[in-house]
Amino acid sequence: MKYIPYETLIDFHREILAKAGLDSETNEAVTTGLCETSLRGVDSHGIRLLPHYTRSALSGRKNPKPNYSYTQKFPAFGALDADNTFGHAAGFKAIGYAMRMAKEFGIGAVAVSNSSHPGAMASFVLKAARDGYVAFAFTNADALLRSHGGQRAYFGTNPTCFAAPRIEEEPFCLDMAPTIFSWNKLLTYREKGEKLPGEYAADEHGIPTSDPDLARSILPIGTYKGYGLAAMGEVLCGVLTGMLFGRSIPAMFTTPMDQPRHLGQFYLVMRADICQPLTVFEERLQQMTDEVRQEPNLDGERVLLANDPQIEEAQRRKEEGIPVVDNLLEELRTLASDLSVDVTL
Amino acid sequence: MKYIPYETLIDFHREILAKAGLDSETNEAVTTGLCETSLRGVDSHGIRLLPHYTRSALSGRKNPKPNYSYTQKFPAFGALDADNTFGHAAGFKAIGYAMRMAKEFGIGAVAVSNSSHPGAMASFVLKAARDGYVAFAFTNADALLRSHGGQRAYFGTNPTCFAAPRIEEEPFCLDMAPTIFSWNKLLTYREKGEKLPGEYAADEHGIPTSDPDLARSILPIGTYKGYGLAAMGEVLCGVLTGMLFGRSIPAMFTTPMDQPRHLGQFYLVMRADICQPLTVFEERLQQMTDEVRQEPNLDGERVLLANDPQIEEAQRRKEEGIPVVDNLLEELRTLASDLSVDVTL
Repeated sequence: MKYIPYETLIDFHREILAKAGLDSETNEAVTTGLCETSLRGVDSHGIRLLPHYTRSALSGRKNPKPNYSYTQKFPAFGALDADNTFGHAAGFKAIGYAMRMAKEFGIGAVAVSNSSHPGAMASFVLKAARDGYVAFAFTNADALLRSHGGQRAYFGTNPTCFAAPRIEEEPFCLDMAPTIFSWNKLLTYREKGEKLPGEYAADEHGIPTSDPDLARSILPIGTYKGYGLAAMGEVLCGVLTGMLFGRSIPAMFTTPMDQPRHLGQFYLVMRADICQPLTVFEERLQQMTDEVRQEPNLDGERVLLANDPQIEEAQRRKEEGIPVVDNLLEELRTLASDLSVDVTL
Repeated sequence: MKYIPYETLIDFHREILAKAGLDSETNEAVTTGLCETSLRGVDSHGIRLLPHYTRSALSGRKNPKPNYSYTQKFPAFGALDADNTFGHAAGFKAIGYAMRMAKEFGIGAVAVSNSSHPGAMASFVLKAARDGYVAFAFTNADALLRSHGGQRAYFGTNPTCFAAPRIEEEPFCLDMAPTIFSWNKLLTYREKGEKLPGEYAADEHGIPTSDPDLARSILPIGTYKGYGLAAMGEVLCGVLTGMLFGRSIPAMFTTPMDQPRHLGQFYLVMRADICQPLTVFEERLQQMTDEVRQEPNLDGERVLLANDPQIEEAQRRKEEGIPVVDNLLEELRTLASDLSVDVTL
C-alpha cells in the first residue's frame, strides 16, 4: 500500500490516457472522473479502472477521439450519440448540455446513446450541483441483479444518482446501486477465500448464498423494491435511448475488448430557484443537512447524510494521498512502462 | 367483508365528498385517486382514507374549493401553490401542467407547495404514461423512517414513483416507499396483537424490534440506501418547494384537524420519443416487459415487473368488486348517514 498525492495521480492518468490515444477533452473527463472518485474513497469506481480503460481504448472497444452527434430534438430535451467513447466523456458532455437547457428553460435532459461505462455517476451530478443546479443521473449495466422471484439476473445494478447544492462547498449527493452488496466487494471476498457476511448473492439456481465462489448474481435491496429501481433505470437508459437492454447488454469484463457495449445514460438538470431564490434553497438544504447531522445517534454510530462519508474521505485523502494497494500499484507501473510514461508513482 | 362494485364505490365517494363541500374538480380528483387505488389492490392508500379525508375537509385542514396559483417561472418548470387543498387534486393539476410543458419543450416539471397527502403517487404518473409520457412523482411525509445510525425518524417514508408507456394498456409503474415494511401493515399487526414477521421497526431508542407496540419508526430498505432515497425525496418536496421538511412536518393523524400540513410534491413529465418514435419506445418497453415475465422463476414464485400485481388485482376487482372489510364498511355507512348520503353500500 502506498499513498500517492492526488495531483501526481492526475498527472499519471493524463499521461497514460494520452498515450492510449485519447483526445484532450476525453482525457480530461476520464482523468477527472476516475481520480476524483478515488479521492472520494469510492475505490471500486476509481483509478483501479485505469488499466481496463486503457485496454479498451487500445483494443478498439472505446473511441478515444469521438465525433459526438447532438440533436436538440425538443427545446429542453436533447439526444447525444456518444460515438462509443468513454462514458465519463459522454457524461460530462451531456450534463453540460442539460445545464444550458436548465438555465434557459428551468429544466433540461439528455438521453445518451452509444456510450460505455461511466464510472461513478456522482461525477456528473456533482458538477451540476456545484454550479447551483439540482441533477439526476442514471446508467444501465449488464445483467447482475437477481430478479425478484427469479433464478438469475435480467437487469444490471443500475444506479440512481441525485445531487443538490447547499451552503457548504460540497453538495448533497446520493449515488446508489439497488443492491445489498457490491459485486466488486464480493470479488475481494472470493479472492481471499472468505464467506460473505450474509446471503447477499444468489447461486446459479437463484438461491441466496454467502459463498462468493457460487455467486452468479447479487440480491436487490428491499427485494422487489431494489429490483424495481433497476427496472426504472433500464427504462430510462436502455429503452428510452434506443440502446440494448436487459440480458442483451454485453458484459463489461468478459466481452471481447474490440466490441463496443452500446450502453445508455440519462441526465436531467433543473434549476433550484423555482419557489425561492437559489441562496434560500441552499440555506434550507444546509439547514436540513445540519439538522440531520445533529440527530441523536445509536451507540457507536453517527447520523450522516448521503455523501458525508465521501466528503470526509476526500478531505483525508487530499492531505494523506490516495491509498493504492500493492497489486494495483504494480499494475499501474507495468502500464506506465508498456506505454513509456515517465510519471513515477 | 363485502365486495362492492367499482362504479358503486365511485358514486358513493362522489356523493360523500360533495356533501363535504368539495368543488367538482377537487371531488373528481380525490374520488378517482382513492377508488382507482383500491381497484389496484393498494388498500392502504385507497378508500379507507375517505373518512379521514372527509373530516379534513369539514374541519378546515384541507380546502375543498381551492384557488390555485400557478406560476410559469421558467418555460419548462412551474410552481403550483395548491391553496391547502387535497394532494390528489393538486397532483392531477400539476401533472396536467407538466404534460403540457413536456409536449412543447420535451420535458416539464412542477413543484407543488401548500399541498396535503396525495394518496398513491401512481395515480398521477399513470395518467401521464397512459397518454404516452414518461413521468416521475415524489412527495414528502412526516418523520417515520428511522435514520441510518440514528435513534429516531427524521425523514418520512417519502416514495419514489415512475411510469412509462408500452403496448399493453397499463404502463410500467414503480411506486415504492423506501421502507422494508409499511406502517399501515404494522398497525394491523398491532391491532391483532401479533409480532411482525421480522425486526422491521425500531423502538423509542432506535433499536430494531418485531414488537409493533414498541415501534416508533420503520426501517429503510438497504439501510443507508433507503434512507438516502427518503432524503432525496425531501430535497425535492420539502426544500425545493419552500415547504417544511424533516421533523417539522405535522403528522397526518395526530395533528389537529383544522391545521393544514403544508406538504410539498414534485412532478416531472417527459416525452418518450427522444431517440425513436413513441410507438418504437412502446414496442421496446413491451419487449422488455415480455422478456422479464418469461425469465426462469424460483420454485413457487413468479418473475413480475413493477405494477404487474396491481394490474392483475385491478382486473380481478373489476369483475368481483372491491373487498371492503367490516370495520371500514361500518365506518363508511356511518359517514353516509351523518352526511345524509343515500348511495347504499
